[in-house]
Amino acid sequence: MKYILKISTKDQKGLVYKISQILFENNINIIKNDEFVNEEMFFFRGLLEGEFNKEKLVDGLKFIMPYDSSIELYEKRKKNIIVFVTKESHCLGDLLIRHFSNELEANIKAVISNYNILKPLVEKFDIPYHTFSTTDKNKDEQEKEVLSCLKNYDFDYLVLAKYMRILSPHFVKCYEEKIINIHHSFLPAFIGANPYKQAYERGVKIIGATAHFVNDCLDEGPIITQDVLPINHEYTWKEMQKIGRVIEKNVLSKALDLVFEDKVFIYKNKTIVF
Amino acid sequence: MKYILKISTKDQKGLVYKISQILFENNINIIKNDEFVNEEMFFFRGLLEGEFNKEKLVDGLKFIMPYDSSIELYEKRKKNIIVFVTKESHCLGDLLIRHFSNELEANIKAVISNYNILKPLVEKFDIPYHTFSTTDKNKDEQEKEVLSCLKNYDFDYLVLAKYMRILSPHFVKCYEEKIINIHHSFLPAFIGANPYKQAYERGVKIIGATAHFVNDCLDEGPIITQDVLPINHEYTWKEMQKIGRVIEKNVLSKALDLVFEDKVFIYKNKTIVF
Amino acid sequence: MKYILKISTKDQKGLVYKISQILFENNINIIKNDEFVNEEMFFFRGLLEGEFNKEKLVDGLKFIMPYDSSIELYEKRKKNIIVFVTKESHCLGDLLIRHFSNELEANIKAVISNYNILKPLVEKFDIPYHTFSTTDKNKDEQEKEVLSCLKNYDFDYLVLAKYMRILSPHFVKCYEEKIINIHHSFLPAFIGANPYKQAYERGVKIIGATAHFVNDCLDEGPIITQDVLPINHEYTWKEMQKIGRVIEKNVLSKALDLVFEDKVFIYKNKTIVF
Amino acid sequence: MKYILKISTKDQKGLVYKISQILFENNINIIKNDEFVNEEMFFFRGLLEGEFNKEKLVDGLKFIMPYDSSIELYEKRKKNIIVFVTKESHCLGDLLIRHFSNELEANIKAVISNYNILKPLVEKFDIPYHTFSTTDKNKDEQEKEVLSCLKNYDFDYLVLAKYMRILSPHFVKCYEEKIINIHHSFLPAFIGANPYKQAYERGVKIIGATAHFVNDCLDEGPIITQDVLPINHEYTWKEMQKIGRVIEKNVLSKALDLVFEDKVFIYKNKTIVF
Repeated sequence: MKYILKISTKDQKGLVYKISQILFENNINIIKNDEFVNEEMFFFRGLLEGEFNKEKLVDGLKFIMPYDSSIELYEKRKKNIIVFVTKESHCLGDLLIRHFSNELEANIKAVISNYNILKPLVEKFDIPYHTFSTTDKNKDEQEKEVLSCLKNYDFDYLVLAKYMRILSPHFVKCYEEKIINIHHSFLPAFIGANPYKQAYERGVKIIGATAHFVNDCLDEGPIITQDVLPINHEYTWKEMQKIGRVIEKNVLSKALDLVFEDKVFIYKNKTIVF
Repeated sequence: MKYILKISTKDQKGLVYKISQILFENNINIIKNDEFVNEEMFFFRGLLEGEFNKEKLVDGLKFIMPYDSSIELYEKRKKNIIVFVTKESHCLGDLLIRHFSNELEANIKAVISNYNILKPLVEKFDIPYHTFSTTDKNKDEQEKEVLSCLKNYDFDYLVLAKYMRILSPHFVKCYEEKIINIHHSFLPAFIGANPYKQAYERGVKIIGATAHFVNDCLDEGPIITQDVLPINHEYTWKEMQKIGRVIEKNVLSKALDLVFEDKVFIYKNKTIVF
Repeated sequence: MKYILKISTKDQKGLVYKISQILFENNINIIKNDEFVNEEMFFFRGLLEGEFNKEKLVDGLKFIMPYDSSIELYEKRKKNIIVFVTKESHCLGDLLIRHFSNELEANIKAVISNYNILKPLVEKFDIPYHTFSTTDKNKDEQEKEVLSCLKNYDFDYLVLAKYMRILSPHFVKCYEEKIINIHHSFLPAFIGANPYKQAYERGVKIIGATAHFVNDCLDEGPIITQDVLPINHEYTWKEMQKIGRVIEKNVLSKALDLVFEDKVFIYKNKTIVF
Repeated sequence: MKYILKISTKDQKGLVYKISQILFENNINIIKNDEFVNEEMFFFRGLLEGEFNKEKLVDGLKFIMPYDSSIELYEKRKKNIIVFVTKESHCLGDLLIRHFSNELEANIKAVISNYNILKPLVEKFDIPYHTFSTTDKNKDEQEKEVLSCLKNYDFDYLVLAKYMRILSPHFVKCYEEKIINIHHSFLPAFIGANPYKQAYERGVKIIGATAHFVNDCLDEGPIITQDVLPINHEYTWKEMQKIGRVIEKNVLSKALDLVFEDKVFIYKNKTIVF
């Protein structure tokens, strides 16, 4: 059995010494550990192995840190996710294939969409697909339905794999730090609708994609990972959109790997990624 | 003797045929040619060789195109440039070394700065260095002095190699499409002052640099080339600034090569780069 | 109806003029054209549109070029392909998803493998899957069976999407310039078996992938496209293999797009890619 | 005063705990520390600050590790280097500019060359330049002269900044793990002479550069860093050489930064780079 230990606490002298002492005394084998200190905070992530008393370990760690520290210890396991899509298959398809081949550190419990276009694809993989259309009802009602549907599932993360709807602040609040989005630009450039068209109009020479946690400000949540692709004057925005799919799926895929392996900390709207 | 032929004109059927016919009939050897058509315009760049009557060639080309077409034909030659700097040496130094080694398609006629910090470096290479301080006089007066100094030189381009002052609309107007700037972000992200600090605060995972022509809107001129570098949470903005120097000098250097080899067209605030 | 015109011929003065004249006189609209001249040869690729007499056009072109020139003119259409795999799903899966979403310029007619591991995945998409095991018979016999199976299909290209068997010179001869392979290193580094292990042992700081046409020398055929990924000392070769999947599928995917859109010429074991 | 502590030792349980305990008990402030464990070895690099007894610290560390461990503790300081060049100025020029601007963590004590072409450039910066021609004497004699010249200098590293001569095994032996070379290919591809020509002939779509420590097998020493650039069929090998200069100088520059900041360990012909 492997365990993940994640600590974020106010920095103090000797912290590595004190933590490693407690781990040593609990006879824990540290397979891999990472730490990072910024101006004020200390972040630690350890992949642990061994037979030990979890409560005793956490108590030991609590003893050496301020009461408002965050100490998480849990068994390493596959995450459960719900994937949100609209019409495009590339990000979803990548997750389905990796899921099928046991290369994704997550189980796709269901797919939710505002269209039923991707239903035939998802059902090939025996995964439930729920359509909540937005054409015949207003946004609030549709979100209520989605929220109600989510109650039926046990999940760790919601993955917006090109879900082209903006979630309400209420929705986001319900799943704080649990929603991951792929935005098709190198943020903070080209926030909002149709970033490829914006990129075309500005005449940039690179386009990009950004995976980030969703907060209540559009496209302004903590960035997990980003990547770019060179383009030139020959690209129409439709062609940017076409080649952009490759970075979108790769960036989302990489971000999810990092999150599912518990390598990401969120602090003050930024991420620490080990 | 080699010649550059640059044409931009309204697109029409058979244009390549007509142009290549005229070149053929004038017994011109086309070493390399590029063309591009967008929704409405046709752009052509040819590197030509041969003995021919320049006037006759241009007349022939004018005959097949609308009167408002742009047809430029000139001998390929090194450009003359004035470099503007403030305190940082990396972009300037790169140009000086390439100039010294005859690897730059330009002659550096002079360096202009608002500080004299880089004077010792420039004078090693026997290039005039003019300081126009902004501490003891107002911006307008300083610009007047700079403009007056420029009158003494014959030049093709002004290169802002990390010149940390904003030029007035009047100044920009005087040298339209002749001023090239390096901005230390992947525009349009992080316009304005201290982009590395902005990047740090936003928590991006890539930083970049953009070389562009200067127009009267800050950092909004036509982009020539851009590049990026991956970073992570460990970088302070000072460290971003440090590693950013590498992309800044490379991006400026590449943009200048393109401009000096007459490979860049400006059209509607965007560039076509062959 | 759109047409592709591909020409490769000995270079001569005025060729562009002569070709564009013939196209103009046949009332053809050139949507896009590219040309390239190396020391001796001229390559042309045009995407054409219009109502014209194909025979007359080709005759006109033949007239201005030496008899051993290659002139190909055909309707633009989706290619038919057979995909070869062994056990890994990432390249195949990417093609299946793109095929399903109509984003691949090809129809996957069948999948051939030496294992039946990927059969359940392929059959979800209603594509025939043929297993020709190599464990119970010798290599020659297995190849004979594969060749015999291929006779049932009408196809343009064979795509080796991580097919971990070496094809015999006889097999390669049968489908010259029709077999595309993805090799998991930046060739010519790490030819042969287990390039990730070789990369690990050499201690390189980048790994890569190469898509190339197959000739009778292992991993020495004409390269279509390549890409790389940075790594560091922390990566075991198993981890390189894992992250390498992303470049493998992207590089293969990009190479296939280029080939299927008729943008690739092969000349003297190298490619010209427009 | 800042100190660098570098440890490489056989891995054992509790090592981080024991080391951090000793550092804590010596009242040392750890500004930054990195560690890495491979199958058998443990590597540690710490940037330390504080008032402490160096001997006591090292003794404490020795006590907890096997006698054949490597424990290095020294004041952080600029390195002294001798730069070797032949005719090309780009790598050297980059170092001179960074040295001049105090952005290089090293002092250039002298430049050695087999030609005097770059003498005028180096002397601008008041750095001694020694020419040891190879045209009028044999290789052994020339090396003897170089070795004899080196005796006059106190230096940490020899930097081969495009020195186009192969050093003899004897020479390499004299300065084991002290010679850094830039090779103009992504090793292990294109070992030996004229890698750009080799790259051109193979028809690769990326070219690269590799900075490595020199051992007695040509281009086979431990790799420090590598980078690549995309190319296409239009590039002649002369043009590859031209654009390759950018990666060559950047890769060498980055590798030197890492070495000069004591971030590189060599182990079994590979590097660990923190």
